[in-house]
Amino acid sequence: MASFTLHGIPVSRGIAIGRAHLLAPAALEVKHYLIAEEQVEAEVARLQDALATVHKELQTIWNELPKDSPAELGAFLDVHALILSDPMIAEVPLNIIRSRHYNAEWALVTQIDELSAQFDEIGDAYLRERKADIQQVGERVLKVLTGTAVDLPKPQGDEPAAKMIVVAHDISPADMLHFKNGAFAGFVTDVGGQNSHTAIVARSLDIPAAVGMFNASALIAQDDWVIVDGDAGVVIVDPPQVVLEQYRDRQTRLLRERKKLVRLKKTPAITKDGTEITLLANIELPDDCAAAMEAGAAGIGLFRSEFLFMGRSAFVTKLPGEDEQYESYRKAVAIMKGRPVTIRTLDIGADKPLDAAEQTALNPALGLRAIRYCLAEPQIFLMQLRAILRASAHGPVKILVPMLAHAFEIEQTLAMIEQAKQQLRDAGKKFDANIQVGAMIEIPAAALALPMFIKRMDFLSIGTNDLIQYTLAIDRVDHEVAHLYNPLHPAVLYLLSSIIAAGAREGIPVAVCGEMAGDIKLTRLLLGMGLREFSMHPTQLLPVKNEILNSDLTVLATQTRRILRATDPVAITEAVAQLGAL
Amino acid sequence: MASFTLHGIPVSRGIAIGRAHLLAPAALEVKHYLIAEEQVEAEVARLQDALATVHKELQTIWNELPKDSPAELGAFLDVHALILSDPMIAEVPLNIIRSRHYNAEWALVTQIDELSAQFDEIGDAYLRERKADIQQVGERVLKVLTGTAVDLPKPQGDEPAAKMIVVAHDISPADMLHFKNGAFAGFVTDVGGQNSHTAIVARSLDIPAAVGMFNASALIAQDDWVIVDGDAGVVIVDPPQVVLEQYRDRQTRLLRERKKLVRLKKTPAITKDGTEITLLANIELPDDCAAAMEAGAAGIGLFRSEFLFMGRSAFVTKLPGEDEQYESYRKAVAIMKGRPVTIRTLDIGADKPLDAAEQTALNPALGLRAIRYCLAEPQIFLMQLRAILRASAHGPVKILVPMLAHAFEIEQTLAMIEQAKQQLRDAGKKFDANIQVGAMIEIPAAALALPMFIKRMDFLSIGTNDLIQYTLAIDRVDHEVAHLYNPLHPAVLYLLSSIIAAGAREGIPVAVCGEMAGDIKLTRLLLGMGLREFSMHPTQLLPVKNEILNSDLTVLATQTRRILRATDPVAITEAVAQLGAL
Repeated sequence: MASFTLHGIPVSRGIAIGRAHLLAPAALEVKHYLIAEEQVEAEVARLQDALATVHKELQTIWNELPKDSPAELGAFLDVHALILSDPMIAEVPLNIIRSRHYNAEWALVTQIDELSAQFDEIGDAYLRERKADIQQVGERVLKVLTGTAVDLPKPQGDEPAAKMIVVAHDISPADMLHFKNGAFAGFVTDVGGQNSHTAIVARSLDIPAAVGMFNASALIAQDDWVIVDGDAGVVIVDPPQVVLEQYRDRQTRLLRERKKLVRLKKTPAITKDGTEITLLANIELPDDCAAAMEAGAAGIGLFRSEFLFMGRSAFVTKLPGEDEQYESYRKAVAIMKGRPVTIRTLDIGADKPLDAAEQTALNPALGLRAIRYCLAEPQIFLMQLRAILRASAHGPVKILVPMLAHAFEIEQTLAMIEQAKQQLRDAGKKFDANIQVGAMIEIPAAALALPMFIKRMDFLSIGTNDLIQYTLAIDRVDHEVAHLYNPLHPAVLYLLSSIIAAGAREGIPVAVCGEMAGDIKLTRLLLGMGLREFSMHPTQLLPVKNEILNSDLTVLATQTRRILRATDPVAITEAVAQLGAL
Repeated sequence: MASFTLHGIPVSRGIAIGRAHLLAPAALEVKHYLIAEEQVEAEVARLQDALATVHKELQTIWNELPKDSPAELGAFLDVHALILSDPMIAEVPLNIIRSRHYNAEWALVTQIDELSAQFDEIGDAYLRERKADIQQVGERVLKVLTGTAVDLPKPQGDEPAAKMIVVAHDISPADMLHFKNGAFAGFVTDVGGQNSHTAIVARSLDIPAAVGMFNASALIAQDDWVIVDGDAGVVIVDPPQVVLEQYRDRQTRLLRERKKLVRLKKTPAITKDGTEITLLANIELPDDCAAAMEAGAAGIGLFRSEFLFMGRSAFVTKLPGEDEQYESYRKAVAIMKGRPVTIRTLDIGADKPLDAAEQTALNPALGLRAIRYCLAEPQIFLMQLRAILRASAHGPVKILVPMLAHAFEIEQTLAMIEQAKQQLRDAGKKFDANIQVGAMIEIPAAALALPMFIKRMDFLSIGTNDLIQYTLAIDRVDHEVAHLYNPLHPAVLYLLSSIIAAGAREGIPVAVCGEMAGDIKLTRLLLGMGLREFSMHPTQLLPVKNEILNSDLTVLATQTRRILRATDPVAITEAVAQLGAL
């Protein structure tokens, strides 16, 4: 068979080489027939039994979850259990059987399709990808209904497991469980994006992965030789010998570099000229703190609290309560052992899948999001603030507020934090009365009106992803304009450097917590602008630290000033690549 | 009956007082029944006859269009004729009769509903409102099918026509025809927005109007006394005597002021200190040039060329050809008699209603719009460029390019203008080889990277509406965040003043063509920033000129510098209101 190359989305770095292990797609044939009146309750019972069976299955998987499996897997299983017991799945299909006399499979599929269509309407990219959860839960129930054996991948063939590449249409969290302990070398899926299960777990396990490969699972045959380039998002099938050797060389080189990096774990992040840089971690769930500590993070720079609400916004009645949120924050504080934990308040939009048809904004990115949503829903916001404040009694905690742009929003936010404190005082609960409050700078108006932030805030954190999107008027998720996303646009560089310079001038700490902070190609540029605090995914900490150890700030500052005066994009890109080289 | 007040969207300024004239809603009862096989072709013929009848009706209305009726009316009738003969209306319903055996009314309504749903998906606010055209055409055909007399409003009752207020669910262009010659004093509709027919025609006729009043047409009774406040978007029904007298006073005062303004028509726009200001008009169709000349505009600062494509993007095969576009631009040039005409190239998105379900971007405002779309569709762009260039042979024409943000977009645009010129040279067609090319500054990145524009462009035009929306990350059409739209946000003021200052420093003309330019509350602020070119709707020209005549730039410049240093929004708002007061 001839060699061919597929292009998709790179979601977890590194090179994997091995034989393809195909995960058979569900391809369940769903029969459609009408149930006689007298059989309806028997059919309802059949569906209820199937739901109960899947519930038990998930419980078993949960209980058998190995200690070393990534924290995300447990969270994903929780989401599946939640979905399974939600009335949307646990009741509506039963009613469909009763009212329309559909058979159980048909009733279930009808409701899953309906929910999936609603999910497509959601503005938030992360939540939108949770449609896959609903479908995977539906698929599990269908398999039980139709008596199809649940397909568990097991390494086969002559190659050792460690050299297998999993190729699938999509991979569910339960499937994922079988890939721990180095059983597989790489992941390739037809669907998914940066926030799909496969992507998140692959990054967490540090296994190269490329997703969004369209029909990879149809084009790749069982046991084909496959190279996964997780840096470029490329999959090469049946590579010629010469290509294979090139990639083996690159893989060896990468592994060697990685081993060198591991030795840097306890090395302080100090530049050649002796300046200490603070390296923080971005996390999504309290358990991620372990990886942050493991990578030597000085603290948590961005705890994306909406992950606690993940999948839940679809089921409003089950928003996590104050105690549940408090427990999550307290757990993070405990794991971090005295290192600061910066918790960003809820950054979701008002889009709720259950009434998406009515509520979806035309441009959700320009709509009721983050602090705008929180100020419009004071009870939800106060509850989160109380939970964060209570966690601050156990160790250093900071509050980070997303999407602020107006003076009155700052005032209202600070007033609500005071209100939450008073509520806790009234309830006799402890908290850090001097808790620090910071603002995400991610809207151009905020970046251009810094004095109003500097006057009121204890620290600033630049969210480069959104700041770049709004500054360039580009939605990076939109493939028609994604190519226009450019962190090196002179306007972006101007905004970043002026925020960092204002922070230094006014003595207010400034961190960068967007993707730029974890990109080693941009570390020297940010250092040259004067940035002293970087917050990134734990896996990026050591490579960035390596860059820092090899940087001299006096040289970088001069060279960066020159870049900031340039207007030609090609010259800028070249100069950034050359930064620090003498 | 007790007095009550309704709140909606103000779309045409002024006060109207009069008795309500209700336009009966269609309320057509559509019968649904299946046609026997042998009757199908007769039913198809019945629908074809109805379509032909409506076509003739529209033709008759067209022919009887009085000379003094607003240009928009003719354009709207054109759109209705286009829709009527499009396969979507002229063929698909016939096929529905044949394939599903629906009766003609049912087949038509099915297709209209389908098309309406697709329109709801469109990103562009203007095009989205064109759904009303499809529905109005469908309603006309339905009326013919069901034998319902077409409802033509005629002034009734004791009050003279001039005191009648038209209250309707919606008003079609054909209905509109009956309101010329001062027959009515004001318009109130349940539906519609800034770009609805009612809004556009009301502004053009200078009749106060408020739309988006939800169920006004159900709440207001025939012959009720009604006050329409077209400034506030408020309608007061059965006002108490004291309120009525207050409004009569205000109306008299407004009329007196307006008469005074009319005298300014030929007065040059020169400030007290002797600086001449250039006042230009924004137009949508060539015929609007008459109103621009009438108001004494020094030229056209913004010709929104997408209005020529209006309603057409739904029917791609009927995009206006080069000759048709050229005729439109030439016509504008002819009416303006040597005054410059600045034509903005196509500012639409890639949203096409016919395949909206597949193509709609999640955030169309951050997607493939304007120049991004044109660079992706070079044939459409080159055709428009050739048409504009050919018009430049007849008088001063400038090209204005929307949504530029990147250096390579500027380069590609200029290269395509060169290519269009070469194509015309090859075809032996005349054009102004030195035609000026300018950029809209409406993306924060453009405002912050002015050197790349100043180097390549002949002039700049600030589109304040989009610039504010992106800078604040707000979609003003989204009612959940519309209150966050604030032209006086310090970041907005900083961007505006720095663009204007850079233009003055580098000797490149800068105009403002967004809504701020026509807002008399902001005229002094813009003058104080150094702006010398304003482009606005023709009806705003005289009020703005009046502000200019009463302004002293030396005073304003000093006071404005103080405002630009302020950060407190309340203080800024007060200082702007006090500008120029001694």
